[in-house]
Amino acid sequence: MSYSIAIIGASGYTGAELIRLIATHPSFEIKALAANSKAGLSMDQVFPHLRHLDLPELVTWEQIDYSQIDLAFCALPHKTSQEVISQLPATVKIVDLSADFRLRDPEAYETWYGNPHAAVEMQKEAVYGLTEFYRDEIKSARLVAGTGCNAATGQFVLRPLIAAGVIDLDDIILDLQCGVSGAGRSLKENLLHAELSEGTNAYAVGGTHRHLGEFDQEFSALAGREVKIQFTPHLGPFNRGILATSYVKGDPQAVLAALKAAYEGEPFVEVLPFGQTPSTHHVRGSNFCHIGVTGDRIGGRAIVVAALDNLCKGSSGQAVQNANLMLGEAETAGLMLAPCFP
Amino acid sequence: MSYSIAIIGASGYTGAELIRLIATHPSFEIKALAANSKAGLSMDQVFPHLRHLDLPELVTWEQIDYSQIDLAFCALPHKTSQEVISQLPATVKIVDLSADFRLRDPEAYETWYGNPHAAVEMQKEAVYGLTEFYRDEIKSARLVAGTGCNAATGQFVLRPLIAAGVIDLDDIILDLQCGVSGAGRSLKENLLHAELSEGTNAYAVGGTHRHLGEFDQEFSALAGREVKIQFTPHLGPFNRGILATSYVKGDPQAVLAALKAAYEGEPFVEVLPFGQTPSTHHVRGSNFCHIGVTGDRIGGRAIVVAALDNLCKGSSGQAVQNANLMLGEAETAGLMLAPCFP
Amino acid sequence: MSYSIAIIGASGYTGAELIRLIATHPSFEIKALAANSKAGLSMDQVFPHLRHLDLPELVTWEQIDYSQIDLAFCALPHKTSQEVISQLPATVKIVDLSADFRLRDPEAYETWYGNPHAAVEMQKEAVYGLTEFYRDEIKSARLVAGTGCNAATGQFVLRPLIAAGVIDLDDIILDLQCGVSGAGRSLKENLLHAELSEGTNAYAVGGTHRHLGEFDQEFSALAGREVKIQFTPHLGPFNRGILATSYVKGDPQAVLAALKAAYEGEPFVEVLPFGQTPSTHHVRGSNFCHIGVTGDRIGGRAIVVAALDNLCKGSSGQAVQNANLMLGEAETAGLMLAPCFP
Amino acid sequence: MSYSIAIIGASGYTGAELIRLIATHPSFEIKALAANSKAGLSMDQVFPHLRHLDLPELVTWEQIDYSQIDLAFCALPHKTSQEVISQLPATVKIVDLSADFRLRDPEAYETWYGNPHAAVEMQKEAVYGLTEFYRDEIKSARLVAGTGCNAATGQFVLRPLIAAGVIDLDDIILDLQCGVSGAGRSLKENLLHAELSEGTNAYAVGGTHRHLGEFDQEFSALAGREVKIQFTPHLGPFNRGILATSYVKGDPQAVLAALKAAYEGEPFVEVLPFGQTPSTHHVRGSNFCHIGVTGDRIGGRAIVVAALDNLCKGSSGQAVQNANLMLGEAETAGLMLAPCFP
Repeated sequence: MSYSIAIIGASGYTGAELIRLIATHPSFEIKALAANSKAGLSMDQVFPHLRHLDLPELVTWEQIDYSQIDLAFCALPHKTSQEVISQLPATVKIVDLSADFRLRDPEAYETWYGNPHAAVEMQKEAVYGLTEFYRDEIKSARLVAGTGCNAATGQFVLRPLIAAGVIDLDDIILDLQCGVSGAGRSLKENLLHAELSEGTNAYAVGGTHRHLGEFDQEFSALAGREVKIQFTPHLGPFNRGILATSYVKGDPQAVLAALKAAYEGEPFVEVLPFGQTPSTHHVRGSNFCHIGVTGDRIGGRAIVVAALDNLCKGSSGQAVQNANLMLGEAETAGLMLAPCFP
Repeated sequence: MSYSIAIIGASGYTGAELIRLIATHPSFEIKALAANSKAGLSMDQVFPHLRHLDLPELVTWEQIDYSQIDLAFCALPHKTSQEVISQLPATVKIVDLSADFRLRDPEAYETWYGNPHAAVEMQKEAVYGLTEFYRDEIKSARLVAGTGCNAATGQFVLRPLIAAGVIDLDDIILDLQCGVSGAGRSLKENLLHAELSEGTNAYAVGGTHRHLGEFDQEFSALAGREVKIQFTPHLGPFNRGILATSYVKGDPQAVLAALKAAYEGEPFVEVLPFGQTPSTHHVRGSNFCHIGVTGDRIGGRAIVVAALDNLCKGSSGQAVQNANLMLGEAETAGLMLAPCFP
Repeated sequence: MSYSIAIIGASGYTGAELIRLIATHPSFEIKALAANSKAGLSMDQVFPHLRHLDLPELVTWEQIDYSQIDLAFCALPHKTSQEVISQLPATVKIVDLSADFRLRDPEAYETWYGNPHAAVEMQKEAVYGLTEFYRDEIKSARLVAGTGCNAATGQFVLRPLIAAGVIDLDDIILDLQCGVSGAGRSLKENLLHAELSEGTNAYAVGGTHRHLGEFDQEFSALAGREVKIQFTPHLGPFNRGILATSYVKGDPQAVLAALKAAYEGEPFVEVLPFGQTPSTHHVRGSNFCHIGVTGDRIGGRAIVVAALDNLCKGSSGQAVQNANLMLGEAETAGLMLAPCFP
Repeated sequence: MSYSIAIIGASGYTGAELIRLIATHPSFEIKALAANSKAGLSMDQVFPHLRHLDLPELVTWEQIDYSQIDLAFCALPHKTSQEVISQLPATVKIVDLSADFRLRDPEAYETWYGNPHAAVEMQKEAVYGLTEFYRDEIKSARLVAGTGCNAATGQFVLRPLIAAGVIDLDDIILDLQCGVSGAGRSLKENLLHAELSEGTNAYAVGGTHRHLGEFDQEFSALAGREVKIQFTPHLGPFNRGILATSYVKGDPQAVLAALKAAYEGEPFVEVLPFGQTPSTHHVRGSNFCHIGVTGDRIGGRAIVVAALDNLCKGSSGQAVQNANLMLGEAETAGLMLAPCFP
């Protein structure tokens, strides 16, 4: 059986990553590619690395014949995404990679994103797309909202610890480094090679990063009380990868046990032996997430480090994983590519 | 049908790349991994990025039960390779990734590599593994000698031009940049990040690089006369990729036509429209080779630029491509992974 | 004695590099900084790495009181540069870093740059700023036109060979890699870290790069006949540095002798012992140029490799060197900073 | 007045950095360079980027005539350093860049470094070389022990906060990224470009990094009670730079005030306006340290980020700064080089 796929917003990095993954997917066929600003171009003009694939020409999203589409990935900027998705026919399943349907509360959305939500009804219907924790809901969803890449990484570390009640909820720190592809293909001075390579810096310090909206929503729901973490992202001179270093108060072995229990049997999330730490080098280009736990010399504190590829497991890989579930495919279909090292 | 594969020399970068490719190959199964210096370790201790795979423990090459093996990839250093391969049972097909069987003439081998050849009979039997040009011989070969990564790139550019007689054979320049994984996992000061990143240099200048032995052998055989090219490799601050810029004397359109004719229908080698130039960014992590032709402002001169991934199309990808042919599989099996960009 | 300096076009990389060099210059004082698009900002808002310096606020170039200025560096884009410079008072000495006054022939200028020259009289007066070859003219010049960074590198290699008559003038190839700062602080997709790092590509292939205008002018004048070289630049994943690899026909020892004679006693240009090759790593951040000569295995051919820092010796360092001469200072003043390695 | 300088251990990165700084120092003259494993080589064979300098040949440290030396920088590995320094004549002032004299307590030394101290008497005499906090003692010291690069960065952030009593001493987290030159010129797999570039990882997680010995000693002395911090270093894919992100509990404005008061008038340490964050890009190649304070959305918590160049301010620059004081020179002599950006 084969499924007909559309990608709306195909000219950005997450769009390209979707195509890379679908290129070797056993049952997905790309039937339409949309990018309104580049409609009329062929995909190899926009991304020459996809030249070997026989892909449809870029069109506008309005030009797609959705009656032929089983599932659409929507990789548009937030705000645009909700405007487009609300106009798609109800027969099309949708995996949204933007931020638009991650927050269930319209007020929280407006607080973090600065504009009122234009599709409040759909917002209610959307399922949060962190596959390992919303698997059942995703299987029957029509609209799945992919998590943010930083939000996914932090949740892979912290959800099991909060759920198991093994850490102090009032003292959680998430320090994170993200590769530059997380910022997308946007033309900004600080993303130029000359400015970004050979150094690093923090940004959105002090609790202003939008992915905190997801952490707040998910962690508070899990704990049954308000949970606010501290979160500092850094921009690192590498293209793919997120490394999250989390400082928690709790017994390190209990922390390890909670993680091991949570990810037992998971195909993509692996908990390393106690005391080992992961590296983004070892997940690059893949859908895997590695997590390591270490105790601190100060008793009752643990450091948990997680690594994943922001474009793949943190975004487009997760999206394909969700689409597999929504279409009744094997969850791992097309996603077992080994990391590309060195 | 499934084939049992051994990899001898599994602890280097080409070994890891073989495993990465075989991980999603439809019919290859890794039955044995050898690395004498690391025997007893598990593969994820040597290459943590392969942690998700269920791989056999590392053993010495002598410990492998070759009666269970259909084909062995041999990714050892030259000299060691010939010593090991000459002791393998005749029932095992072999793809050698070292330099040991690339040169048919024992004297040429000794000249370029500094030691007498220890398996002269096997040397005669070996088929040169540049798939696109030795396809038929490879299909029936027992021992295939993978080309050097620089040698492969240069030949993709120059073989069709020499064969078609469209360029001056006495004035061929091949200027090339190679990523650092081409130097292997060896501990040398100039391969340290601190020394290599943020700059570039030429090496083996003036005709001393060993891959010239392959160029001399192949180009002279093609032309029916001695052909010696000028060749300068550079070491670039990137991990994967070779960009070869070749300066030839001949009509640019004839050059383009010869390349287009040679690669018509080839699944992995693509000739770009006239005037376009390839980039290593767009083949990274894949088995594709992109070639572009441009005319110079000086009439009768052409610049031909080729890009491939040295670890994949230049080495392990080519090796899998050859193994596919030797075992009667589809040539492209396991090799259609899209490039990993960005 | 101290000199009052203005920098017009201070918000780009060459502007920042001028300030870096002048920061430890014994007799230059920055009295005015202009950048019309950023007038009103302080310099540390534009370049935080200059935060420790007590610098004037950015103004428009029209706001500068030129009666207080001994010398102005003009680091504007070409075309804008000629419009501004033609309006500066005659009392101000000028070192222009743009392309506007490099070509003496207005027709050649229009051919390469696409617009008619708006200051033809000044064009005649301007001295070409390749210090080592125009030292005397520069000392008494009012307007010096800095060479292009690629053009400087190529000329350091080829001028002595052409002047000495030791190479074939009809078969000169200059293959060059340039770091990304050579493209300036412009917002282009291919200059993003995500697109540029971890790979390389050629550009302006086939004789279309504008610096060829300088090569043609200078080499033809030197030779007393038309000389056209082949020139291919590549964009490398590093910020600073040019490595030029030149293929010439001539006796390698004669080539070496010509270079050694030309640079005898020069403080910034060093010819390495025969057979050694330079690296951009070893000149990064400095005003030095290293040149190495090797013979090819084919007799009568030499490969000459040169390395310099495009922002320093290729642009702003050269500009300070010229300013030193124009103001009667020691030529090396402020320029003996050692390369920054690693 | 000019001072005669020896560098013992001149073949590593801190040795090279000392020479880079001394190259433009107004009153230091390098009279001897020692590197026992490379004795007999010229410096440009070991570090070609220093080729332009007229430097003495490398000798063994025993071969130096110390009667001609005013001050020796000792850039040897720990343990070797104490053995050598204990044999130097008392007339020579010494700045040690190793870890050997940083810890005043011999037991603490043995705990962190694994070997008993071989020069316990000298250990007592040594002054801790964090210039901004030990200025007076350094002026009259014979032996100054340079701080570790991570230790220096962390102390620039935390000393003023501990001294001012504005933070909770039991809940201090220091999360840090260090460039690879901090690991020195050692041949290790994880320092290869192919393994290190394009990703990041934590190491020495959980309180095992040796620089904790310095933190414990200094912070406990400052506070008058035991203070233990949590400290996680990460290895980043860049050559120079440390970015330290510290999470403290205290009023952010009080934190800012304490830092501003501590660094008022300091030439090399700059506190940014509230809410701004520094970047290692903006201190690269210089002796400056930038510190920024931000409040968290959770009241009573602050995030303090500091950036410096580990080879310069974190090591060799600090060493020159101390040598200036020891010899009665201006503290900033030779150290006002602007950062090298881009």
